[in-house]
Order: sequence, then C-alpha cells, then structure tokens
Amino acid sequence: MVNETQHTSSASCSSKSDGGSSSGSESSKDSSRCSTPVLDAERHERLREKMRRRQDSGDKWFSLEFFPPRTANAAVNLISRFDRMGAGGPLFIDVTWHPAGDPGSDKETSSMIIANTAVNYCGLETILHMTCCNQTKDDITMHLQKAKRLGLKNIMALRGDPVGEEWEEEVDGFNYAVDLVKHIRNEFDDYFDICVAGYPTGHPEAESYEADLRHLKEKVFAGADFIITQLFFRSETFFKFMKDCQAIGITCPIIPGIFPIQGYHSLRQLVKLSKLEVPQEIKDVIEPIKDNDAAIRNYGVELAVSMCRELLDSGMVHGLHFYTLNREVATTEVLKRLGIWKEDPRRPLPWAVSAHPKRRVEDVRPIFWASRPKSYIYRTQEWDDFPNGRWGNSSSPAFGELKDYYLFYLKSKSPREELLKMWGEELTSEESVFEVFTCYITGEPNKNGYKVTCMPWNDDPLATETNLLKEELEKVNRRGILTINSQPNINGKPSTDPIVGWGPSGGYVFQKAYLEFFASSEIITALLKVLKKYELRVNYHIVNVKGQNITNAPDLQPNAVTWGIFPGREIIQPTVVDPVSFLSWKDEAFALWIEQWAKLYEEESPSRMIIQYIHDNYYLVNLVDNDFPLENCLWQVVDDTFELLN
Amino acid sequence: MVNETQHTSSASCSSKSDGGSSSGSESSKDSSRCSTPVLDAERHERLREKMRRRQDSGDKWFSLEFFPPRTANAAVNLISRFDRMGAGGPLFIDVTWHPAGDPGSDKETSSMIIANTAVNYCGLETILHMTCCNQTKDDITMHLQKAKRLGLKNIMALRGDPVGEEWEEEVDGFNYAVDLVKHIRNEFDDYFDICVAGYPTGHPEAESYEADLRHLKEKVFAGADFIITQLFFRSETFFKFMKDCQAIGITCPIIPGIFPIQGYHSLRQLVKLSKLEVPQEIKDVIEPIKDNDAAIRNYGVELAVSMCRELLDSGMVHGLHFYTLNREVATTEVLKRLGIWKEDPRRPLPWAVSAHPKRRVEDVRPIFWASRPKSYIYRTQEWDDFPNGRWGNSSSPAFGELKDYYLFYLKSKSPREELLKMWGEELTSEESVFEVFTCYITGEPNKNGYKVTCMPWNDDPLATETNLLKEELEKVNRRGILTINSQPNINGKPSTDPIVGWGPSGGYVFQKAYLEFFASSEIITALLKVLKKYELRVNYHIVNVKGQNITNAPDLQPNAVTWGIFPGREIIQPTVVDPVSFLSWKDEAFALWIEQWAKLYEEESPSRMIIQYIHDNYYLVNLVDNDFPLENCLWQVVDDTFELLN
Repeated sequence: MVNETQHTSSASCSSKSDGGSSSGSESSKDSSRCSTPVLDAERHERLREKMRRRQDSGDKWFSLEFFPPRTANAAVNLISRFDRMGAGGPLFIDVTWHPAGDPGSDKETSSMIIANTAVNYCGLETILHMTCCNQTKDDITMHLQKAKRLGLKNIMALRGDPVGEEWEEEVDGFNYAVDLVKHIRNEFDDYFDICVAGYPTGHPEAESYEADLRHLKEKVFAGADFIITQLFFRSETFFKFMKDCQAIGITCPIIPGIFPIQGYHSLRQLVKLSKLEVPQEIKDVIEPIKDNDAAIRNYGVELAVSMCRELLDSGMVHGLHFYTLNREVATTEVLKRLGIWKEDPRRPLPWAVSAHPKRRVEDVRPIFWASRPKSYIYRTQEWDDFPNGRWGNSSSPAFGELKDYYLFYLKSKSPREELLKMWGEELTSEESVFEVFTCYITGEPNKNGYKVTCMPWNDDPLATETNLLKEELEKVNRRGILTINSQPNINGKPSTDPIVGWGPSGGYVFQKAYLEFFASSEIITALLKVLKKYELRVNYHIVNVKGQNITNAPDLQPNAVTWGIFPGREIIQPTVVDPVSFLSWKDEAFALWIEQWAKLYEEESPSRMIIQYIHDNYYLVNLVDNDFPLENCLWQVVDDTFELLN
Repeated sequence: MVNETQHTSSASCSSKSDGGSSSGSESSKDSSRCSTPVLDAERHERLREKMRRRQDSGDKWFSLEFFPPRTANAAVNLISRFDRMGAGGPLFIDVTWHPAGDPGSDKETSSMIIANTAVNYCGLETILHMTCCNQTKDDITMHLQKAKRLGLKNIMALRGDPVGEEWEEEVDGFNYAVDLVKHIRNEFDDYFDICVAGYPTGHPEAESYEADLRHLKEKVFAGADFIITQLFFRSETFFKFMKDCQAIGITCPIIPGIFPIQGYHSLRQLVKLSKLEVPQEIKDVIEPIKDNDAAIRNYGVELAVSMCRELLDSGMVHGLHFYTLNREVATTEVLKRLGIWKEDPRRPLPWAVSAHPKRRVEDVRPIFWASRPKSYIYRTQEWDDFPNGRWGNSSSPAFGELKDYYLFYLKSKSPREELLKMWGEELTSEESVFEVFTCYITGEPNKNGYKVTCMPWNDDPLATETNLLKEELEKVNRRGILTINSQPNINGKPSTDPIVGWGPSGGYVFQKAYLEFFASSEIITALLKVLKKYELRVNYHIVNVKGQNITNAPDLQPNAVTWGIFPGREIIQPTVVDPVSFLSWKDEAFALWIEQWAKLYEEESPSRMIIQYIHDNYYLVNLVDNDFPLENCLWQVVDDTFELLN
C-alpha cells in the first residue's frame, strides 16, 4: 500500500533535530491589555480561518512554495525574496522539508530555520512541511515542539520518500501521512493547522485513483484542515479531482498547486520526480524551443495564466498555490496578470509585523528600528508582552544585546565589494563620510559612479515617505548632520493614502515630525543653544557612545509620533519615541558604524580610523516636533544651528 | 499637661465606628498598563509632594475646612458645595471629626462618609480629622483601616476635647495628639500623610507658649508631615510663630489658618471655644455693626484679604487654609480677590476624576455617564483596574447595579416640589414630555413659567460644550428625539480651549460627534432605514428596556470619541463609546425615567402612565460620526429620519 511522496525533490529519509533553541513562548498568550484594538482581523486568525474569511468575502488569494537553500548566501537571498514576494500579499508561504538537509536543525539552511525566519522576521504566515517515514515518534515530536516554540502554526503532513528503491512498511513506525496527522492531533491537540497533499491524477505509487482518494479522505478525517494538490497541466484534471473528492465526502478546502513552466530542464526534472505525464500539446510547443529559456518561460506564464483563469472562473477555486522553485519572475508575472498580486498592499500598521502568535497583539514599537525591523524582532524575541509595561519603565526586561550582526536574516544583502564601492574604497576625511550619506539621500552616483542603495542603518533604498523630505535631508547631510531616520508631520491624511497610509480604510493617520542623526560635538553645542528657543515645542534626546545623555523630556514617558483614528475603534499609536529603548538603540546604532562600515577596511587604515573617530566622538540625536498641525520646525532648528556655527 | 483641642466646635469625646463597609482596595496598586501617560503629575502625588511641588514652582494654593452636616439634606447641599468650591481649585479640603456625631460610622452625616464622598465622588484631595482621647487603640485602628479602605490618604491627628471639665491623663490611652501620630506611623507606616495643629499664640491649656512649641516639635518628629495653624487675627502673630518654630528645628510646611469673619455670633462662638482673644481694633469695628450681617461680612472679607496679602507677600507662606464654617460666599470672595481662586480651572481630563488612590491611573470612561460621573464611580467602585481589560470584554467584572437612586451623593439637588414645577405637575401626552426636554435645552421657561435646570439624566444645566449644539438640539427634541447626551466633533483644537480643552497646555484635542437620545419605535424604524445610507460613517447602538439591541458595530470593541495629543506623551483617549457598558448604562438610563420622574406622580395617574409608556416602549440610541474632520453628519441623519416620517 502506498501513500504520497513529497511535492518537490528530496532524497533519503533521515533527520535528527539537534534539540530546541531560539525563542518563543509555548502558548499564544492573549494580552489582557484593553487597548489593543483589532485593526486587522486576519492578524488574529489562524490559517484555516483566514481561508474561510477569504472564501466568504470572495477575495481570491495565492500562496507560494519554497525549498530551503543550500548555502548561507542563498539563505540571505531567499529571505530578501520572501520580503519582496511577501509584499504581493500571499495568504501563506510554505517551506519544504529535506530530510538530507538536516531540516529540523538550527543551521541557517534548515527547513525549520527558514520557516522560523519567514514567520518571525518576514511576518509571513508559513506552513512547514514535515515528512515522517524513517523517523522515530520522539524525533517527530521534538520537531513539532520546536516548531511550536518558534511560533510556527501550520504543518504540511507528508510521508516522505522511501530510503531504498521500494518502500516497505515499518512496524510501529510512521508509514503514512495519516499517521503523522493523527500524531499531531494526539500530541498537540488543535494547536497546528494541518495541510495534506492531494493527487489530481492519483499518487504514482497508489493501487488506483480511487484508492488514493480514499487515503486522502482518511487524512482529512484524521484531522487535516485543507488539501494542497500536486501540480497538474489541465484545469479539467483539477475539476474532476475536486468533484471526486466531494463525492466521497471531502469538504475541506482543496487548493490547486500551480507550476508555471520556467525552463525545459526544471520541467523535465520535476516530471521525473513526480512521475507525471506532460500532455502532448505542451510537449509539442516546448520541444522546438527547448534551448530558448525566455520563450519557454513566456509560454509557461501564458499557460499558467490561462489555466488559473479557468480555475478561478469556475467559482470552485478561491486560492492558488504556486510551486515557485525559489524563483520570482514567472510566478510574480502570472499573479500580476491574474490581478491577485497586491500592487499596493495596505499596511496593517506602519511597520513590518511579525507573524509569531505571541506578537499578534503587538501594536506599538519605538521609531528607532523603523529601518531595521528584523533586528528589533531579534532583540525583543524573549519578551512576553508587546510591549505591555515596557515603555518608559527601565525595570522592564531589557532589549537583547545585538552581538550577532552576521545572522543571515540581519545581514546586508550586498557583499563586501559592493559595499566598498558604495561607501568608498578609501575615506579621506569626515567629509567623505558626509558625501556617502548625501548620495544615499539623493540617489545620485558617488564620485566613483556608484549609487549608494543602502547604509549600515538601512539595507534598502530611501523610503517613499522619506522622499518627501529629500531636499532638506540632502542639504543637512552635506553639512554633517548625518540623518538615519526621519518622518514628516502628517495632520490627518486618509488611512488609504498610498505613501503614509496604514490600517483599514475610512480612518485618518497622523504623525509628528521626527529627525534622527549623528553629528559632531561642535554641531551639538550649537544645536543645544538653538533648542532652548524651541523648549516647549521640540523634544530631544542626545546621546554619545559612552551613554552621556542630554534630554528635555520631563520623565521616562514615550512620545507617540504616529497614530491613527479609525471608525468604531480605539486610537492606535503604533510608533513612539521611547527614552528607555533609545539607549538600547543607541548601542546598536553606534555599533553599526564599526560592524558594518569600519570593518570593511584594514585595521589601522586611515579609512577605518575615520569611522572609528566618528563612532567615538559623534552624538546620536533624535528630535520630535510636537506641534504636528503646524509646519515642521525641525528644519528651522537645523538651519538655526548651522547659522550659529557660521 | 495639655495638648491641643479640635479646631472648630465639638462636644464630648465618645465615638464608635460601626465597622467597615463600602469599597476600596487596601493598597494603591499601580497599573502595569503602559499606556497611562502621566498627564497631570499632581494626580499621582501624595499631598506632601503636591505641597512641595507648589512651593518649588511658586504657585500659591489654598485649602478649605468643612464640618460634617447634621441632616441628610444638609449632606446633599454640602456635596454640591464641594463640587462648586472644588471648581476653584483647592489643594485639599479637610473634614472635621465630631465625636458626638458618630464620626466613623456609615451614616451619611458622619465625618468618615463625608470625607469618603469628597475623595471618591467629588475628586477632592481630602484630610480627615481624627481625635484620639477617650478612645481605645482598637477603635482608632479600626477608623484608620476604614479610612484607608475608602481611599483616604491624609489624617489630621488631634487630641480632641476632654470629656469632663478638667482633662485627665489616661494610663495606656491616647493622651496627646503625638500618641496618635506615633500610632499611625507604627500601624500604617508611611501610608497616610499626617497633619497636626499648631497654635500661633500657644494652646489655651498649655503651660506656656514655649512648652506648646516643644509639643508641636514632638508631633512633627513623631512623623507629622505638615502643620495647620489655629486661626489668628494679625499676620505678625503668624510670622513670629513661624520663626519660633524654625528656631527650634521645625522645618515642615506650616500653613496659616484663615478665618474670614462672617458674622458676629459665629465669631463670638469660635472665640469662646478656641479661647482666643479678639484684638481691640477689630472689636472696635465690629461692635457698632453687630446687627448688620452684610457689613460684618464685608469687613471680614477686607480684613482677611489684607492679612492674606501680607502673609503671601512675605514669601514665607505658600498656601492658606480657610475655616469656611461650611459657608461659601466669604471664603470664595477672599480667594477671588487674592487671585488664587481658579476662574477657569484646567481640566486634567474631560470628565470629573475621582481622588481614590486606586483610580489615579484611570484615564478612560464610557461617554454615557458624562453627566452622571458620581453614578459611574459608584457603579465601578468594586473594580480593581480602570479600566484595564474591561472594555469590549463581557467576561470582565460587571458594573454594579444601581439600586440606590437615593444615596445622598447621587441624589438630585432639587426637592420634589421643584422637580414637579420643572417637569410638569401634570403630563397630558408624550408631547408634554418633549416640551420638558426642549425647555431644558433652550433655557426658556416652561408654560408655567419655570426654567428647567435639570433632568433625570443630568442634575446640572446644559454644559457649555452642549450649548454649541443648542439650535439643532432644540429642533430635534421638539419632535420627539429626546437627547440626553451629545458632543460636537472637534478636529484638533488647542488643549487650552476654554470650552472643549483639557489636559496640559501645548496639546490638541479631538472629538467625534456623538448624539444619544430616546425615541419612539416609529422614529427608530425610519432611523434604521436612513442609517443604511451612512453605514460606513456612522456607528450606532439602539436598545430598548428589554435589551433588544440593534447595532452596526462589527464586534465588541470600543470606539474612541475623545482624544488628545500632547507634547512628549502617548495619546490619551479618555472617552469611548463601549458597546458592553452601554448595556449597563441602558439599565440606568431607563430606570431614571421611573425613579426620578414617574415616581413624582401618584400611581396609576395619567402623568405616571405616560412616563411608564415611554419607559416601556421607547428606544435608547447612540450615534457616532466617525468622520471627525468633516462636518457633523448626525443632524443630517436626524433630518433624513424626520423627512422619511413625513
């Protein structure tokens, strides 16, 4: 008797988790805090509820399948791909389980760690695949416990491939996916949402199509919540399968697996592994163009789009699952042409949320990590509350120290050589550092002709919102006010505003103007004199690497700098300037000078010594203009400072 | 050896508390909630800290002494006086202890209950006097425990008057105020702020002025925080006393007791009791005009003003304590002429706060009780959190039932006869009820020539803010939309705005338009049709006395309808429309028809039956216009409803 095999390639079935690690709470504790208004209902729902909501509302969705990378560098790239493709609004992604790749380990290339990163650091609802053949119950339980600890909520329960040529049943072992489904339900009750695989043309090893349907029904009745199908080439294949499933009483959602043909070789490999037959009409088209990658991909996109249209138009299909093969272009194009890729995804909050269950209630963060959300999540992973009882309370559990600047999910997307081209092979003075900041702001190439597309404090090009301040920012960076974070004041724009909007429609969003920068002690001396004039209007915190701290904030209270008013809701204030966490941010912001920039150069080299000098002697400043309905006065503050210096 | 006696009149020294009752938590628990920004630092400080803050800032203050009333009606009047005089901004009030009046009991005239009402229901920082002679340690401890339970934080420790003619020391008893001070510090540590009495001319029973000063020093060194003096007639008396105190090492604040002469007889009685000598120059003025009350009061005010000016101008005095004798006019006039009566007191929040320590963190209330804050406090007195984890959570501890409509601090200030004149000796139809509502709004006399200055839902004339809506309100009440609560929309007015402002200066306040009313089922049917057009903009809750509930609010979340943005602070949202507490308010709002209005009439009388009919058949409606930056659409909703009805 046979069951199913894994969707994409895999080799043998032997895996050991090296035991738990990482953070995460055992249960998803709901905060008792009353002021966490449910802005985005989906954020509080489990995957099966999200599917139901989309089905009820008629809102079509898609999901994306990835496999774990082979190298650390590939992991960095995959995580950026998660971020980019996550922006299109997938309902979930899933990460396959590769028994040969130590999938439950803490290695940066393991299925477990990639899924963990997707959930916690990219904020994606994620399904972790798990295979069960040739594994002990204890191993499986350990993997599941670890997944739960990391905040994973969904498992794709699979049998996995046999070790030898022929598959043999093991006594007392996990022989079928249904055994894994039962085990999950027995040991973890309703904690996980469980997905199982369906085979529109029957599993290649199944006695018959009908027998395979019966096995599928067993898996569903054992507790699976929904089905994702193996790929297929004709929509009729899926329709027939779906009707046959319904006929024998399978009522859960069945999601068609879509494979946009992306190349001749990948198609051949996949077909071989999955033992599927490619229809003659497809072969007829592909064979003549097999060496023309672009032509095959175009054809694959056309084919996928037309099949997906048939599926969606049938009214039987609410979501589409894409086998991406870790590639972006073809799938994105299909989704865009279908009109279900979200071009302008509404942001539920003005920062990138994490999908860990314990962070579902998180609704406020300090502004400092605005460009480094993954670092913020990393440094707060041990927290139990977000951020209940934390702001303005120095006795609260502290931010974790950031020592691991090279964790793959925190690492710059650009390699050392590129960074040197952007930030200067050789620095000659503090002014050459000013120049780097200025080029980053303007988008103009530096004197060697390279564009500066990232900075140690921001791995991405300037935010659209910051663009609103571009002219002023350029002027001040040129003169040594080295800005790393800023936002304009906003006095009640619609929550649907494409640049500054967030949250549900029908609301209004507000901001206080914010400016954060490094500057020399000469500038600080002048700035402090100027700030006396703005005492009642501008709050400031000024600190150097040693922690010398100058502020006019009366106490340790946070200052809300972004808030939103929505119909039928309490006020949401997702971003604050919090004096206590500023001191934790300060450590990170100063360390980035050294870790990301100075260390590009030889020890004792003049370039390195210039960065080290800035690190040791500059101050980090944040300014808030409290009078948000008036014109932002922070530029005037800076102008006055420069005037005083002259 | 003698000590001090009570400040104002008293008789014998025998008192028993009838044991504790009422609400209150043992300790002032600080909320762990992060979003309770300290808007008003004083609200979180104990009395001695407030004094120090005022002294540091040079902000002169005053306090007011009252004695407990003799009758329940007098208690109602005293509480309104607390509200009126509280508006002038006293730093505290104090309530004297009358051993003959069962001062620690639960009677509405007891010192304990009057002080409780001042703290909890009038929001006044309050000192409860307590005398100790002829009382057992256990009695005293019981009184103190009860005071603590009720939220009282300050005790004026006094000896009290002896029972017989001559005072005799009791073995093991409390013989001196210093014994009571020590006892409080022993048994209650630092919980209470303790005040003691000082005698600028020496206690009448003291061996000598010097001996009396030494006793005072003992009291201070035993743990008293500050001193209030007996009245005196010349500022030099106080200056000498203060210097003498300082000379022997008394460094705590010494607050001069001011007695504005208000009448010939009260002066004579006081002088007799306190064994003070009235200076000849005062006698010379008063004797000739002793039968002219107004002349004596004018002279008393003049005298007090000039003495207070001397005290304040000396720089030695930061606060003035007034012996009011429970009268308003003279003290208020002195304070106004001194310029320390707050004409336009800044409201820390848009509703009347309670001074119970456990409510210090209270920063949000449902809008429904806006005109009945004392009822709200009463119904939430058992809560531990304000309102952490309460809004939108039906499993939270419920609102207390309001059965005691006749509790003196919840009772109408107007007697039955006056209410009948305002609301109609005889009602003939529902329209005659509409007329009452309309007259209340317009301020015009009713057809019998009486002004309607209160309603069952509001014991005070229309709020200044509601006046902004007067014209519209008049129109709708005339046609049977019987409004009981409303606020205009506000899109960012300065927090110092005299009508809608609240909180510290430099902020901006906002409101969503709100309208709450009773209406017949015919009106409701039309209204519901009209509301369909406003589905995305207007949230509504419509409920009848049986609890039939119609709403378009998607869930049980509260809707913030008043909020403020302040420099360096988190957002404050002190007023919400909360669907769960609306159902508790509904019970009270409907019951007030019967309890306050119907019961004015004979059973079975037509008037009573009309009110009963409205109670049984009308609906209570609340409407919120979420689009606060636009023109309030609620009047259009009502207009559309009337149009549909025609």
